[in-house]
Amino acid sequence: MGGEDEILSTMEDFAAVYDVLVIGCGPGGFTAAMQASQAGLLTACVDQRASLGGAYLVDGAVPSKTLLYESYLYRLLQQQELIEQRGTRLFPAKFDMQAAQSALKHNIEELGNVYKRELSKNNVTVYKGTAAFKDPHHVEIAQRGMKPFIVEAKYIVVATGSAVIQCPGVAIDNDKIISSDKALSLDYIPSRFTIMGGGTIGLEIACIFNNLGSRVTIVESQSEICQNMDNELASATKTLLQCQGIAFLLDTRVQLAEADAAGQLNITLLNKVSKKTYVHHCDVLMVSIGRRPLLKGLDISSIGLDERDFVENVDVQTQSLLKYPHIKPIGDVTLGPMLALKAEEQAIRAIQSIGCTGSDGTSNCGFPPNVLYCQPQIGWVGYTEEGLAKARIPYQKGRVLFSQNVRYNTLLPREENTTVSPFIKVLIDSRDMKILGVHMINDDANELLSQASMAVSLGLTAHDVCKVPFPHPSLSESFKQAVQLAMANGTSPGVHVRE
Amino acid sequence: MGGEDEILSTMEDFAAVYDVLVIGCGPGGFTAAMQASQAGLLTACVDQRASLGGAYLVDGAVPSKTLLYESYLYRLLQQQELIEQRGTRLFPAKFDMQAAQSALKHNIEELGNVYKRELSKNNVTVYKGTAAFKDPHHVEIAQRGMKPFIVEAKYIVVATGSAVIQCPGVAIDNDKIISSDKALSLDYIPSRFTIMGGGTIGLEIACIFNNLGSRVTIVESQSEICQNMDNELASATKTLLQCQGIAFLLDTRVQLAEADAAGQLNITLLNKVSKKTYVHHCDVLMVSIGRRPLLKGLDISSIGLDERDFVENVDVQTQSLLKYPHIKPIGDVTLGPMLALKAEEQAIRAIQSIGCTGSDGTSNCGFPPNVLYCQPQIGWVGYTEEGLAKARIPYQKGRVLFSQNVRYNTLLPREENTTVSPFIKVLIDSRDMKILGVHMINDDANELLSQASMAVSLGLTAHDVCKVPFPHPSLSESFKQAVQLAMANGTSPGVHVRE
Repeated sequence: MGGEDEILSTMEDFAAVYDVLVIGCGPGGFTAAMQASQAGLLTACVDQRASLGGAYLVDGAVPSKTLLYESYLYRLLQQQELIEQRGTRLFPAKFDMQAAQSALKHNIEELGNVYKRELSKNNVTVYKGTAAFKDPHHVEIAQRGMKPFIVEAKYIVVATGSAVIQCPGVAIDNDKIISSDKALSLDYIPSRFTIMGGGTIGLEIACIFNNLGSRVTIVESQSEICQNMDNELASATKTLLQCQGIAFLLDTRVQLAEADAAGQLNITLLNKVSKKTYVHHCDVLMVSIGRRPLLKGLDISSIGLDERDFVENVDVQTQSLLKYPHIKPIGDVTLGPMLALKAEEQAIRAIQSIGCTGSDGTSNCGFPPNVLYCQPQIGWVGYTEEGLAKARIPYQKGRVLFSQNVRYNTLLPREENTTVSPFIKVLIDSRDMKILGVHMINDDANELLSQASMAVSLGLTAHDVCKVPFPHPSLSESFKQAVQLAMANGTSPGVHVRE
Repeated sequence: MGGEDEILSTMEDFAAVYDVLVIGCGPGGFTAAMQASQAGLLTACVDQRASLGGAYLVDGAVPSKTLLYESYLYRLLQQQELIEQRGTRLFPAKFDMQAAQSALKHNIEELGNVYKRELSKNNVTVYKGTAAFKDPHHVEIAQRGMKPFIVEAKYIVVATGSAVIQCPGVAIDNDKIISSDKALSLDYIPSRFTIMGGGTIGLEIACIFNNLGSRVTIVESQSEICQNMDNELASATKTLLQCQGIAFLLDTRVQLAEADAAGQLNITLLNKVSKKTYVHHCDVLMVSIGRRPLLKGLDISSIGLDERDFVENVDVQTQSLLKYPHIKPIGDVTLGPMLALKAEEQAIRAIQSIGCTGSDGTSNCGFPPNVLYCQPQIGWVGYTEEGLAKARIPYQKGRVLFSQNVRYNTLLPREENTTVSPFIKVLIDSRDMKILGVHMINDDANELLSQASMAVSLGLTAHDVCKVPFPHPSLSESFKQAVQLAMANGTSPGVHVRE
């Protein structure tokens, strides 16, 4: 790096020198900046969004979970009979999407301000702008309406996140054909809403618009939705959403999407099984076939890197690039599930590796807890049955219906037009009774899953869980009951014969 | 017991001989019967209520939790602005108590039927009637409209539960002056509803009627509500309920309650501090100053026992009476908190002690998790700060507001007219970082508490909890955050000086 001094000498707008520069301020970047600063390192952070928090706060998890909850409340209130049976007399409700969006925008700003205040309290400098590498230790920051300037840093954390994958033949114009980001800020309810992709993001947005009255269709190229889910859970999820009114076109590819003169979208679909092509009509098409690392604009090629270096050539103990150990990618730009908690744990590891701390254990993200925030929620952590069979681990399972849970029965009854009864399934190792996987459908899965994640990640056994007194009445009691049942049941038949 | 044969020979209606007879079929009795039967013991169960499930199902936890949830929903729906801000336009709601009671009755029957089916599946004979000891191994069962008969049993589990304590000068007529059991089956909403006793039962019923529009006053003879709660939590709870409209008269005794000609209740109160007496008016007075073991009718004196034998003279390892080891009291008739989970764990211990099983660990009920199901809920498990100070255990605390939790912000905003911001407080041992106590106010406390109870009862440390990946976004993340904060904070000042 002999050229560094030369470059700097020609830069009149050289601004500051930091120990750590964090590029991107989502959950991962924020955690990295906070940890670095708390470890006594001079830290700065650069982010180009209007509000801090990354895709997570601004156009990902927060808007989707907020709208899911609001749209569920609306759907619930429309089920007059269900509520009136239990005492409260109601008149029909209406939904005002603009009011919801305006509350949402306010909420996102408030949460962004929490980030801002915490960073400021910890003396982290925040730049609002884009960042581009000039050399391995220098980054150019361009803020709107200002002359770009250079920042020098000993360590650089790359936490720029991910962007929606585009599909050939389906040009996103964010009017008729939209990304999932755009869908979460729509201020109207399309009457026919079609979604490409049956993954978590697609399904959650499907639920929002289905709850609000759109006619929702999901087009998925695989034969099942949610590929990483336990088969039984995925199949129950599909049935559940079908009962709520969502249509599924599986084994189906989108070949072309075009708007006609009347403003209708005509989508050419190919059924992979029948090999037949047909046209599907809708008003809005959302593309959510996945997300990819977002490194565009960072000019990594200027320092001899390409995208694969962030995926393949990383030391995962220290979150360091093999080529430049002082550059530390975290979160969605790295391999593995695109979850905020992975980014946060990687952030902690990255900063600990700088050598200031290192005592706190970080959590094991090999099996992160997953939640699909539909209603009821779908949650899972650890091994699936398929995974155990594949790994040839002998296991026992306990499956309990929530309909026999006392707390469940004190809450509002659920919609009747569903053939799926909420359940929890616990998988334990037949050899040592360790809890290996927990899969559930229930309103509160995102909270119930914490106990399950504790059990799985700390290697607790069924005996341990049996020792715990659970609040009474609570949905959590069904977790204990499923654990007890798994202990009582023998090893699942078939586990030794399946491949 | 030489007289036994003689007695039997004179009884023409001698019916059956069992290994185990369980008297009372609440959560404890049911668990005992199921465990005994599954251990291969010939088992019968006798219960006098119309529906199985004991006070727990029939006039305790289930009705109170159901009505709490329904009345909260009604209260929420009346806060039109709160909901309309987030999109759903509503018209004012009304509450129909008769509809709610009829749904509740149906629900209780259904849950009772679950008990019945399970017992029947396990070949447990169920007698609907009262039971009275004839000698240590023989019990007379009287079923309505039938001739009494005698049942012989090797072991007898006494799980008869508890009843409301009466107060001199305040005669319960279940019209104007009612018990908490009666309150939960009222089919109208009194306009002025006064409650004697500021414990958990009193507070929950106060919330139900306050939500539904009654003007609720709580009269408590102590200077604080909920004596077993952490002081900070108790004080926050009182403020919270005051903000919701409930009035508190603390340090106040009820001396006399009388209805006047107009049907109004005139209650003479004594303020213990000012020593002044005054008259308070209301329409209905509920007495909930506590519950006591219910052994009446069991004729324990016929075998030389009195109530103290069930409290003081019990071997807690085997749940056996010292005088008659084959008689095993469990649940509310024994010492300790009157919680269903205690009864269930005692049931397991009692049956294991009969010697058939013994491998399953039972949970530690020394620190059972507690929930006050108001809205937001109040939950706590383990040591209070006062308890730690008294035990001279050095501790550190972490306290986190849920208002900074992302999941919290995606849900509906809470009422603004409250000065209490929901929080979670974690207390850890400064010496080994073990989690000793968790105290919280939040909507979902009854589910969040399970994780906390796992940590406390399994002796997990703060380091352990830090290793767990929590679902994102979830309220549970605040638990982890509070644990992290407790680790970062030093030993609480004052712990060494307090007595």
